[in-house]
Parts: sequence; C-alpha cells; structure tokens
Amino acid sequence: MPLTARYGDPDAAVSVANDVLAVQFAHRSVRRFGPRDVTADELTALVAAAQSAPTSSNLQPWSVVAVRDPERKKRLSALAGNQAFIAQAPLFLVWIADLGRARRLADRAGVAADAADYLETTLIGFIDTALAAQNAVVAARSLGLGTVFVGAIRNHPEEVAAELGLPPHAVAAFGLAVGEPDPSEPAGIKPRLPQAAVLHQETYDAVAADKHIELYDERLTTYNSTYGLPGAWSDRVLARLRGPESLAGRHVLRAVLERLGLPSR
Amino acid sequence: MPLTARYGDPDAAVSVANDVLAVQFAHRSVRRFGPRDVTADELTALVAAAQSAPTSSNLQPWSVVAVRDPERKKRLSALAGNQAFIAQAPLFLVWIADLGRARRLADRAGVAADAADYLETTLIGFIDTALAAQNAVVAARSLGLGTVFVGAIRNHPEEVAAELGLPPHAVAAFGLAVGEPDPSEPAGIKPRLPQAAVLHQETYDAVAADKHIELYDERLTTYNSTYGLPGAWSDRVLARLRGPESLAGRHVLRAVLERLGLPSR
Repeated sequence: MPLTARYGDPDAAVSVANDVLAVQFAHRSVRRFGPRDVTADELTALVAAAQSAPTSSNLQPWSVVAVRDPERKKRLSALAGNQAFIAQAPLFLVWIADLGRARRLADRAGVAADAADYLETTLIGFIDTALAAQNAVVAARSLGLGTVFVGAIRNHPEEVAAELGLPPHAVAAFGLAVGEPDPSEPAGIKPRLPQAAVLHQETYDAVAADKHIELYDERLTTYNSTYGLPGAWSDRVLARLRGPESLAGRHVLRAVLERLGLPSR
Repeated sequence: MPLTARYGDPDAAVSVANDVLAVQFAHRSVRRFGPRDVTADELTALVAAAQSAPTSSNLQPWSVVAVRDPERKKRLSALAGNQAFIAQAPLFLVWIADLGRARRLADRAGVAADAADYLETTLIGFIDTALAAQNAVVAARSLGLGTVFVGAIRNHPEEVAAELGLPPHAVAAFGLAVGEPDPSEPAGIKPRLPQAAVLHQETYDAVAADKHIELYDERLTTYNSTYGLPGAWSDRVLARLRGPESLAGRHVLRAVLERLGLPSR
C-alpha cells in the first residue's frame, strides 16, 4: 500500500495491505461537517468499538457524554477555544477520564479506594480513555464519518464538568466532534515524521532519529504551503511549547484535577 | 453485527457493519504466542498505523522501541512483573511518552520549552502515545497478530529507561507484546459494561448508569467462571484500587517522572 501522503514521501509504501490499514492510513482530522446527522446506530457502533479497546485490569475507567443539543454545543465551544466546528458538528462526544464509577462502588461497599489518589491512576484513566476514543475515531471513519479531537476541552475543566453534570472524580479528557465530512474543507492527510525518527530498534538512538527532522521540516513546509499555512514543524513545536502562556490556561491543570477529585499525587 | 460476546448479552447487536468494526469488536488480549516472527513489513505497517492516529497540534510526542533480543525481553519481563509472555512474544514494543525530541529541538535552537514542564504536557504525551498504540493494536489484529498491553512497564520506569537507553524527558508509557496468537490459550472476548453504564446523553447521570453494574457483575462472573477465574467485576475493581500497595510500586510515579525529566507540575 502506498504511504505517499502519510509521509509526504513519494517512495513510502508497505507491502502488507487490508481494509483496516487503508482506513487507518487515510486518517485526517475533519473540521467542517455536512448536514446529515449521526444516527443512533452509528453512535452505538462507535461506543461498542470504544469499549472493545483494551483497558488496564478491565477497570474501564472512562465514560462518554454524547452532546447533540445546539445550545450546549455552543456553550462547550465557548469553553473550548471558541472552535466553531464544535457547534457545527451534529454530534460532540466528550470523553471522560472517570474514576467516579469505581469510587462510588467503594463508597457503596464502605471500603477504601486510596489507590485512585495517585498520578498512576489518573494516567490510567487518561490512557484508557484515549485507547477507547481512538477506536471510535477509526470506527467513525469506517462508517464514512469524520472526526477531530478537541484538547481545548481541558482549557476550563471545572466549567465543562458543571455543564455536563460530571460527578466527583471525573474530568473531560478531550472532546471529539463527529459528522459527515464536508468535501469543501481545504484539508488533506498531514505528513508525519519519517518512521526512522520515531521507531528505534532495541535501544533509543536520539542522534540517528533526529537526523530525519530536517527532511520532515521540508516536507511539512511543502504540505502546509498547499493550504497557505506558514512554518516548518520545528518552528510550530517550539511555539507550542515555549512557556506556560502557550498552554491556553492548562498550566493549572494539576490543581484543577485535584479540585475535581483526581489528586494525582 | 452481533455484540453478544462483547457484552455477554445474547441480545446485543448493532445494525451497521463493516470489516473494520468486525476487527474492533472481536478484540481480545493475547498472552500466548505461536512461533512465527513478526516481519519487518508488518512492523512498518503497525508503526505507520500508529503515526496515522491524531496527535495534539501535530506534536507527535512519542517514540517506540522495538525489542526482539531474547535477553533484553527477559530483562524487561523481570522489570514488568515477571510476565512470561513478554519474553515469549517475538516482538515487544515499548511505547515512549517522549518530550525529549521537542526538548532537543529547543536546546539546539537555544530557546525555552518551559510548557513541557507541566502536567498538561505530560498528559498530552501519554494521551498521544495511547492513541498511536491503539491504532497499532487494531492494525496488528487486521494482520492476524495478537497483542497485549503491559502497564507493568511502569513498575520500574528508571530501570526500563536505562535498559532502553532513553534520553531525558522520555518515559516508557506501556509495553505491547505482539505475535501470532496461540489458539491453545484459554481466553475469549471479555464482556464489557453495558453501554448504558458508560454512555450518557447530554449530561452525566450517575444513578441511571450505575444501575447496570449489578447485571454486568453477573455477566462477568459467568464469563470468568468459564476460565476458572473467581470474582465479580466490582470485587476486582475494589481490590485493584484499595490502596497504594495495589499499585505494584507505581504510587511513586510522580516523583519518578520528575527525575526522568517530566516534572508534571
């Protein structure tokens, strides 16, 4: 199968092929949606796919809130960086890292669940939520639907929790806008780093891996210029990580998680 | 498509169907592997699938180390709870939440990357690593390969970092054993919580959701008894989260991450 678009490299390809890989390799984020709704059956399939993902010790420490109400989508959009596609998408899924279910079990049983206080457990919550949501992303694409993740839902986690009526020990990990891709959107398959920049054999070799970044900067600059966007990859990474002011308020997330009942100690 | 096994419910089904959903719905963890190797082309496909997953601001804050050396697999197995399947699998992938690549970019450019100090950025590292790895899991299954995640790679993160020669600002998020499933393994598709326990419409309703746990406990008890395993889901969750002693040493992860250069403040 060709991997030309995936790597921005005319020679990139792999000799194995099937329908699943074709769907995965063709992934792009969709931020402009057509008018058709996401059906209840499609939502059932997305959630069944999500629940089919692995989960640490079968804890299943996540939940998902399906938002279709236009006013609620608008309010969530305002809380998440005013990204218009959130309100435009017919379905906005908010994925919840959810230790609340287990904590409620413990409360009802009258036993401690002190392990949930640790950063390790918060990480399990976020990791398992991500594993699940990625299955939903691939399932959506297999059904002809487009998606885009919304990390900006973490800009105001307490306001989002109030909007969605989240119980204690639960936090919105990220949003996912879902809908029919509008073909007029000017967007394509964004090239990724060459495999040799991220894949190491036996041990990590930073010098060998980082040699591929220069070529990637050229490829991504070429790709971005197609859409009138400036900047090489390196420049964008450095701008994104410069300092706490680059984090859209999320530099206080640790304190916010503690207030939401995920002390992450 | 039937979802009987997925939910341990003879009536569970969904009206949409395709090959991708079939692969996802049939997921199970594989902990016993046949003799055949994972080919270089298959590994290329797994990593291309992983790189096709979404990533926040295209940061691509992850790397993966492919371990095939039998002695190294044995040492990693010893560090990760002595799980024999790690050494038995032909391929053990260690997925790295990797802020090191961006930090090295910043060092070479002589600029700050202080946003990488925050918990938000650590979470992005783990989330994006999980999104990528889940694509590899589904890709593997589409190629007839089985996988199982190994969270126990976080039992001793500093020793794992030394074994793999990780640079600063990088940590093993989880392992993934990959190989041909041995059909003699006594394992099946583990039922998950009913959808109504995890999927909420518009707002989160804890009372309505938790009503489904009792039925799930019955279903999982039935499933577990097939494999001679005791315990309902609730009991296992409570045992897993009782206290820091349930975390196999990972209650100190926050301090360990700081020493590895992910201060997560």
